[in-house]
Amino acid sequence: MSPAHLYVPDPKLDLVLERVVDVPPDLVWMAWTVPEHLKKWFTPAPWVTVDCEIDLRPGGIFRTVMRGPEGQEFDNVGCYLEVVENRRLVFTDALTPGYRPAKSPFFTAIVALEPHGKGTKYTAIAIHGDEETCQKHTEMGFHAGWGKALDQLVDVAKTLPR
Amino acid sequence: MSPAHLYVPDPKLDLVLERVVDVPPDLVWMAWTVPEHLKKWFTPAPWVTVDCEIDLRPGGIFRTVMRGPEGQEFDNVGCYLEVVENRRLVFTDALTPGYRPAKSPFFTAIVALEPHGKGTKYTAIAIHGDEETCQKHTEMGFHAGWGKALDQLVDVAKTLPR
Repeated sequence: MSPAHLYVPDPKLDLVLERVVDVPPDLVWMAWTVPEHLKKWFTPAPWVTVDCEIDLRPGGIFRTVMRGPEGQEFDNVGCYLEVVENRRLVFTDALTPGYRPAKSPFFTAIVALEPHGKGTKYTAIAIHGDEETCQKHTEMGFHAGWGKALDQLVDVAKTLPR
Repeated sequence: MSPAHLYVPDPKLDLVLERVVDVPPDLVWMAWTVPEHLKKWFTPAPWVTVDCEIDLRPGGIFRTVMRGPEGQEFDNVGCYLEVVENRRLVFTDALTPGYRPAKSPFFTAIVALEPHGKGTKYTAIAIHGDEETCQKHTEMGFHAGWGKALDQLVDVAKTLPR
């Protein structure tokens, strides 16, 4: 990755989850990019991901449908911006597939993977348009939620064939 | 360009300018991607482009400042999404540099260049989030404005060294 691709988070506008996990980058990548795998870990229980569409290229769809314990559903549609196998995935809901500007953007996400021993240094960054949106994401439980989802991802990744 | 990169415009939401021009793709590319060249053609006279910043990579800044005949200025900041030398440039104002969601997105633009004899088949597509925004862009004079700017681009491109 060139230095130009490194991103320096703004503490007022961005939320960061960084952790070393004991599964290698290619399995983390598979968990993030294959719908049948992603559905098993993407939402912290008791929420579930009931649908997922992935067209893994810049401008391609990334859609998830989350269902809460009381049956409420959230349909999130965005698109990928960068796809670097086993290393870097960037997507946003500020653009719908084909890069069409979206109505109510919430955030852009960077998921960066670096080999770390036999595991992965995992960094997820949520990039918001203003402090209010960032604060809302914090209050929605970004850190606990993304952390629990990552635990679930690791469990799923360990079941995947190499 | 792979078929996955071809974009099918939606006539209700997108505006398209397509024309064959008598300068080759590399000179059109240079006119679009070097600030000192872009400033000479980007805004149809009597408007002028008084400033331009270009960081030519996905997520990098694309900023222009346009000044009208009565001195009014418009500062437009967005970022690039795809940069394929001499072939394809995609940028949007739905994201600011670093892919941060923007406040009031107007449109995403695809500029596609194909060799055509000694010239270029030039296609510019403006992609809007809804019909109202597309209609507003039409009323602002998209076709005449982008057409006149393209005439100016061709004049500038003809002065560029190969």
